Amino acid sequence: MEIGIGLLGLGVVGSGVARALTEKSQALAQEAGSPFVLRHALVRDPQKPRPFSLPQGLLTTRAQDILEDEKVHIVVELMGGEEPAVKYMEEALKRGKYVVTANKEVMAKHGPRLLDLARAHGVEVRFEASVGGGIPLISPFQQDLAANRVSAIHAIINGTTNYILTRMAAEGLEFSLALKQAQALGYAEPDPTNDVEGIDAAYKLAILATIAFKSQVLPQEVYREGISRLSYKDFRYARELGFAIKLLAIAKEQDGKIEVRVHPVLLSQETLLAKVEGAFNAVQVEGDLVGQVIFYGLGAGALPTSSAVLADILNLARKITQGVKPIASPPIGREKPVIPIENLRTRYYLRMTVADRPGVLAQISRVLGDLQISIASVIQKETDERAGMAEIVIMTHPSLEAWVREALKQMAELGVVKEVSNFIRVEI
Amino acid sequence: MEIGIGLLGLGVVGSGVARALTEKSQALAQEAGSPFVLRHALVRDPQKPRPFSLPQGLLTTRAQDILEDEKVHIVVELMGGEEPAVKYMEEALKRGKYVVTANKEVMAKHGPRLLDLARAHGVEVRFEASVGGGIPLISPFQQDLAANRVSAIHAIINGTTNYILTRMAAEGLEFSLALKQAQALGYAEPDPTNDVEGIDAAYKLAILATIAFKSQVLPQEVYREGISRLSYKDFRYARELGFAIKLLAIAKEQDGKIEVRVHPVLLSQETLLAKVEGAFNAVQVEGDLVGQVIFYGLGAGALPTSSAVLADILNLARKITQGVKPIASPPIGREKPVIPIENLRTRYYLRMTVADRPGVLAQISRVLGDLQISIASVIQKETDERAGMAEIVIMTHPSLEAWVREALKQMAELGVVKEVSNFIRVEI
Repeated sequence: MEIGIGLLGLGVVGSGVARALTEKSQALAQEAGSPFVLRHALVRDPQKPRPFSLPQGLLTTRAQDILEDEKVHIVVELMGGEEPAVKYMEEALKRGKYVVTANKEVMAKHGPRLLDLARAHGVEVRFEASVGGGIPLISPFQQDLAANRVSAIHAIINGTTNYILTRMAAEGLEFSLALKQAQALGYAEPDPTNDVEGIDAAYKLAILATIAFKSQVLPQEVYREGISRLSYKDFRYARELGFAIKLLAIAKEQDGKIEVRVHPVLLSQETLLAKVEGAFNAVQVEGDLVGQVIFYGLGAGALPTSSAVLADILNLARKITQGVKPIASPPIGREKPVIPIENLRTRYYLRMTVADRPGVLAQISRVLGDLQISIASVIQKETDERAGMAEIVIMTHPSLEAWVREALKQMAELGVVKEVSNFIRVEI
Repeated sequence: MEIGIGLLGLGVVGSGVARALTEKSQALAQEAGSPFVLRHALVRDPQKPRPFSLPQGLLTTRAQDILEDEKVHIVVELMGGEEPAVKYMEEALKRGKYVVTANKEVMAKHGPRLLDLARAHGVEVRFEASVGGGIPLISPFQQDLAANRVSAIHAIINGTTNYILTRMAAEGLEFSLALKQAQALGYAEPDPTNDVEGIDAAYKLAILATIAFKSQVLPQEVYREGISRLSYKDFRYARELGFAIKLLAIAKEQDGKIEVRVHPVLLSQETLLAKVEGAFNAVQVEGDLVGQVIFYGLGAGALPTSSAVLADILNLARKITQGVKPIASPPIGREKPVIPIENLRTRYYLRMTVADRPGVLAQISRVLGDLQISIASVIQKETDERAGMAEIVIMTHPSLEAWVREALKQMAELGVVKEVSNFIRVEI
């Protein structure tokens, strides 16, 4: 038999997959047990010049050509965005077709519902490529770590921001300049909002948390801060204190409650995550049996993402070829509540510009002390002698986020504090 | 239905698995879709005191009690060693039972044959725990990276030696002292041969190379050197030159030929592998699509190994519960030859003790030059002024192993060379 593939989308990843299906056809057929036939590829503009040629008649602008073709066994959704992707995926599943997707937005927002739909129709949705490009993550969580109770995930899952932070740290660049350079090199999009504001990472974290904790976490439940307010000064102070700064996606479960957040953190220079540089991703998982495991690799790009998409296609093709039914996994509900960020208890790094005169630290300490925030260390540096200004960096002991926020408000109102410049949570 | 489990072996890992099956029974049953019943555990001495109690009548000294029990669906082999483990596994498969094993020796020596036997009897052998403890490796190679042509594996897959090397590097210890400390702390066995001579790592590398390159590599085909001839001096010079020293298991495929070797290497301090410390393992894979991925975690211990054993058990239990046949993977032959170490071309670190007088370096350089070995850098240090001795460390450009060996022989015969103290290959 032949395994019929329908591609929804022929962008960077779609072209990579189509190309691999052609160029590696023999090796893939051997792995799958059957040859693949790419039957259609949905595109917006069939006339658009493409980097490689596909057989005549393969391109279509009508999704129905794919969804209604009985010879298409696997629909590969690589168009991105919520609509119409999710509609097409639903229709494919209802027609008994298998679905492979790299769509983090759809899987974060609709994952459990699509899994239910697949189960009801005796097929599968696979989404390895939706998080971490080619790094095996979804399948390890669903299979290899399945016996573990996962307590925490710490992840660098956005290559663009990790690239920008790596440049800021290494070269003392300000954010805006590092972003411009990343854009010039193609590491960041012309509109970088999705990456630099942590939206992309929040989608991916919602997917990972949902499968790790077996309870749905929606992207809007992920607390989120971007990297645009970081200054090279923060990197300098962090280094002095033995820390690196990374944008981490963090998910934890304790007592049936879930904590999910994406924001810059200070983390010890000694950790492996602190050593993940450039556009690389790394996902660190803590399980009750396995202890700490880390998965590392390129989280984006046509080839790495194709690796994950093709793995999902191969997995399904082996089953289709051998007439093996998919394994139904238990439905995922929404039993476990997500706790608000105000309940977080961690250490904080606070940087502020203050008047360089006696008694200033006493006033600040009083505000903190009254809110039960205890100081672990202080760095004070004169920054502008003529203006009589100094910069203070305070590291706190573990404190409640709600009270730290109140402290920042009260400190900003002190006459001696010119500006509260930044506050960054400390992790690990 | 109930999934019947028979345990062959109730040592550290076996006890961990039995314990988890009991203590996590509810969570595991939910994951599997059926409850588990531990029906028998094969032990040598039923009277031996054990850290936790199993129901009366569960212990047996007769393997046939497990192999002949029709209610045992999955035989979990955790006794280790080649015989009688392999015999029991064969019999289990022939009787249509699924097999899960952590046995690296059996899988390295007999893997493809056992996989064939399983295929012939419509069952499966799973062996995730045989390499890297709880780190997902076998399943990622078989599934997630299946679309890739793997070109190279660089792995730290023996925690004992990595622990010893970490201590030697950090504290300037000699090997014998670091080994004694590792033994005192339980990181090394009373007879450490299997670990320090790279035998354990060679088994694991044979397994990884076999599934990555889809051609059987036998453990005796793995070129192997242990860590016992490393001196703290090597660590000191390596650091000066920007390198760390690790025991790496390396497998490469080029033009249908396989290179497999386990030996100490100098690798750049900037690599992530150089930063893997203590008893942790890390496996770095290069694939044509995925680029570089790294899997990191604890490679041994009762709990991490249980994590992998239980993942395999869960995977099979889901299939048994839902009446889903195993997926047959293509048979693995022996098409790809293993090339001898003499054909290796890499950079070398050479350390020798020489007479501290003019012309010595010229004599050494002539030997190297005549064998087409070109020098990249030299460190010369006076070590013993009274004896007129100095130490020379030479880093070569890429050279042929056969010629480097010949050069070492010729240099040892030079009157000015008191001792060729070490030579270490450079990687990455």
